[in-house]
Amino acid sequence: MAEIQNKSIISRDVNFAEWYTSVITKADLVDYSSMKGSMIIRPYGYAIWENIVSVLDKEFKRLGHENVQMPMFIPESLLNIEKEHVEGFAPEVAWVTEGGKDKLDERVCVRPTSEVLFCEHYKKIIKSYRDLPKLYNQWCTIVRWEKTTRPFLRSREILWQEGHTMHSTKSEAMEETLRMLQVYENFQRNYLAIPVIAGEKTDKEKFAGAEKTYTVEAMMYDGVALQNGTSHYFGTHFAKSFGIEFLNKDNKLETPHQTSWGVSTRMLGSIIMVHSDDLGLVLPPKIAPIKVVIIPIGKENEKVDETINDITNKFEQMEITYKVDSSDKSPGFKFAEAEVKGYPIRIEIGPRDLENDEVMLVRRDTLEKLRVKLKDITTTVEELLNTIQNDMYDRALKRRDAMIYKAKGYNEFKEIANEKQGFILTNWCGNVECENKVKDELGLKSRCIPLEDSEPDGPCSICNKDAKCKIYFGKQY
Amino acid sequence: MAEIQNKSIISRDVNFAEWYTSVITKADLVDYSSMKGSMIIRPYGYAIWENIVSVLDKEFKRLGHENVQMPMFIPESLLNIEKEHVEGFAPEVAWVTEGGKDKLDERVCVRPTSEVLFCEHYKKIIKSYRDLPKLYNQWCTIVRWEKTTRPFLRSREILWQEGHTMHSTKSEAMEETLRMLQVYENFQRNYLAIPVIAGEKTDKEKFAGAEKTYTVEAMMYDGVALQNGTSHYFGTHFAKSFGIEFLNKDNKLETPHQTSWGVSTRMLGSIIMVHSDDLGLVLPPKIAPIKVVIIPIGKENEKVDETINDITNKFEQMEITYKVDSSDKSPGFKFAEAEVKGYPIRIEIGPRDLENDEVMLVRRDTLEKLRVKLKDITTTVEELLNTIQNDMYDRALKRRDAMIYKAKGYNEFKEIANEKQGFILTNWCGNVECENKVKDELGLKSRCIPLEDSEPDGPCSICNKDAKCKIYFGKQY
Repeated sequence: MAEIQNKSIISRDVNFAEWYTSVITKADLVDYSSMKGSMIIRPYGYAIWENIVSVLDKEFKRLGHENVQMPMFIPESLLNIEKEHVEGFAPEVAWVTEGGKDKLDERVCVRPTSEVLFCEHYKKIIKSYRDLPKLYNQWCTIVRWEKTTRPFLRSREILWQEGHTMHSTKSEAMEETLRMLQVYENFQRNYLAIPVIAGEKTDKEKFAGAEKTYTVEAMMYDGVALQNGTSHYFGTHFAKSFGIEFLNKDNKLETPHQTSWGVSTRMLGSIIMVHSDDLGLVLPPKIAPIKVVIIPIGKENEKVDETINDITNKFEQMEITYKVDSSDKSPGFKFAEAEVKGYPIRIEIGPRDLENDEVMLVRRDTLEKLRVKLKDITTTVEELLNTIQNDMYDRALKRRDAMIYKAKGYNEFKEIANEKQGFILTNWCGNVECENKVKDELGLKSRCIPLEDSEPDGPCSICNKDAKCKIYFGKQY
Repeated sequence: MAEIQNKSIISRDVNFAEWYTSVITKADLVDYSSMKGSMIIRPYGYAIWENIVSVLDKEFKRLGHENVQMPMFIPESLLNIEKEHVEGFAPEVAWVTEGGKDKLDERVCVRPTSEVLFCEHYKKIIKSYRDLPKLYNQWCTIVRWEKTTRPFLRSREILWQEGHTMHSTKSEAMEETLRMLQVYENFQRNYLAIPVIAGEKTDKEKFAGAEKTYTVEAMMYDGVALQNGTSHYFGTHFAKSFGIEFLNKDNKLETPHQTSWGVSTRMLGSIIMVHSDDLGLVLPPKIAPIKVVIIPIGKENEKVDETINDITNKFEQMEITYKVDSSDKSPGFKFAEAEVKGYPIRIEIGPRDLENDEVMLVRRDTLEKLRVKLKDITTTVEELLNTIQNDMYDRALKRRDAMIYKAKGYNEFKEIANEKQGFILTNWCGNVECENKVKDELGLKSRCIPLEDSEPDGPCSICNKDAKCKIYFGKQY
């Protein structure tokens, strides 16, 4: 029945890119405007983002972080203070050069990230060890003037959060860096049902200005990687450039240690590319704006209406979000729409089912149908939402693990790179030359050195010299 | 004791502008950066904004609105579609002319407001009466390249919400326009403890492109007006410019009727300028991030610590936010800091008070001290927070009403305008010439024609011709 509306979605196995665009537009997540490279996040898409923000914001605050709001503009001279950083970002910033009718004396860019703004502020407010740690976070929009864009994955405007923290010691800052990486990993596992590989970026791939960059790497359905969050340890790098110092307990001047960490609307892209299917969106119940859709079957019927009323009253008490689709469309059309929108559970209620005190439940993730006694409806729905959430994670994990290939020696590495979709886990000598070779010859970038089980079990697969660690390679969005 | 820290705040009766800047910086609400005209909203200031957002967002959603996110940029050609609108905004927009190293083919401005973006989108998604109403809202930052800026009141970047709705009929759209004005009025009365005058703007003062503009006007301590929120009925003005049409139930094409409405961080400015005093901030309990500060008196003492522990446990259960100031500063310093930060209630707990099973409560708004038995602490605090909230409103209302002057005839009007601070309520003929005369000769602008009691009781005070209505005049921020 789902064919009615959804046959216009091309199969993800035929053309993944076109399938992706189809799903995000047909599920009413985004729309385009005459502002090229930017997207409109429509109510249904924005509601998912609001759910994400709500969970993460609580967790950040529980860990002692405070929200602030910095200017959205950065004067060119301020951006220029940290050389490595400006070289990383200047090629892709949007420059404001005119205000009203006047040309500006100094052009200002729209923030591509806010390190320099935080540093300038920290210089003013950090004087003593008593002022540390400073645990700030900001929810905002950033701009990177990308040439090729795709909604959620790479867009000129990105909604994100950026944590920026300052600490008395290196060990404290490193703890924060890894703690926040863990927050991202847990969140993506427990809420987005996405397994990620937590690891460290190589020097070549780390953030412009960072001493260490950690990442959580997710694998999409097509085997391509999406960097789904990063956490950086800056050392005293920026702090020195900005002259930030504090008096320690012995009344001596020291430079504080800094971190930054962020996740963005890109996570919405990963939800789609990990879980969704040829019928449309599949949403993990925990971040689905509407968890249950109820569709009355047949002509207007008093008993059906009453039953729906009873059920929705219970859902409200249980804080289960729902939608009743009593529009004048056909049931087939409604089913298809429910599938394209990815509501985790669909309940079909018709007079014939009610004669047996039953209703029909349909899982969106498996399309499995369950006849459920009316009296069991709330407990079944509650359990089923949990089951769906867990099953979605398990399936994603199984699929991902099946697409991680271990390579020994460059021949095997090349063979996998040319024939398989997915990640390659291999031994690496630690030299950028080997990364460059893989990039140039095979189009793969290093994803990360995993935090767990990174001991090499053989020589570097690329140059055959002694290996330092294991590393993941993969194509990326 | 409060003198220790706060004597650096100049009296608001001596220099109101300097007092304002002093309060917002000393209370850690904002800081400045090298980005001129923008401000840093620090954690304490941002927490107030978060409380405001949380209350309003719930209310918008309860009334059926959905949040979206439009691009932050507007291509010049899109801005130019509606002539009156572009003339109103073009003089104060920030233009992006370069992306990375390239000059853009078409410059884009940072949104000063988003009517044109919403209209372009509505044109795509509104086809039938079934698609109406569309009740969209957006929380975002807008930019207006002002020459003279002051934090919260007039700044280049403004955090705000903008509602944009589309309706089948004029009457439905007018209902929405006035409903949202009412939401703003109620919110400011019930949460910010600020009385506002709800009224209609004159043609001269209405929004660029609106058919009707409604406003809630607040009076600051110095008698100057702050426009604290607006709600517009656009008619079919924008919709026609953008060619938005829908098929009605009779299958005929019609143009929908549009509204927009917004409030911003400017409300934070009004909280300060209505309620605060020479010791610093005074916050209405309902939006205060920290409702109670607890200050232990004397040396470290086990009984004091235990008592604080008991009290804070209860506060957590009651969801009363609190802070315990056990730093090594002197009590006098802590009191002064509590006053400058405007925590509604201060609790002082020392061993001597505890001998009598008592603690000392201090109201921030009146500085009144109350000895309270330990067993009564939670009920007293709960009641006192309500009392403070209500008293703050009553005082603000009384002060405002005492500063509204009724003028009959231009001589009396001039005399009040030259000698008094506050609003002038007077009869008006409805002609812009009279508004212009008052503006040119006395520096006052019309605030609004009140929604209630607007029947004139004499001729126009400016030209002496027949009056159409009553109207408020006043200086404005």
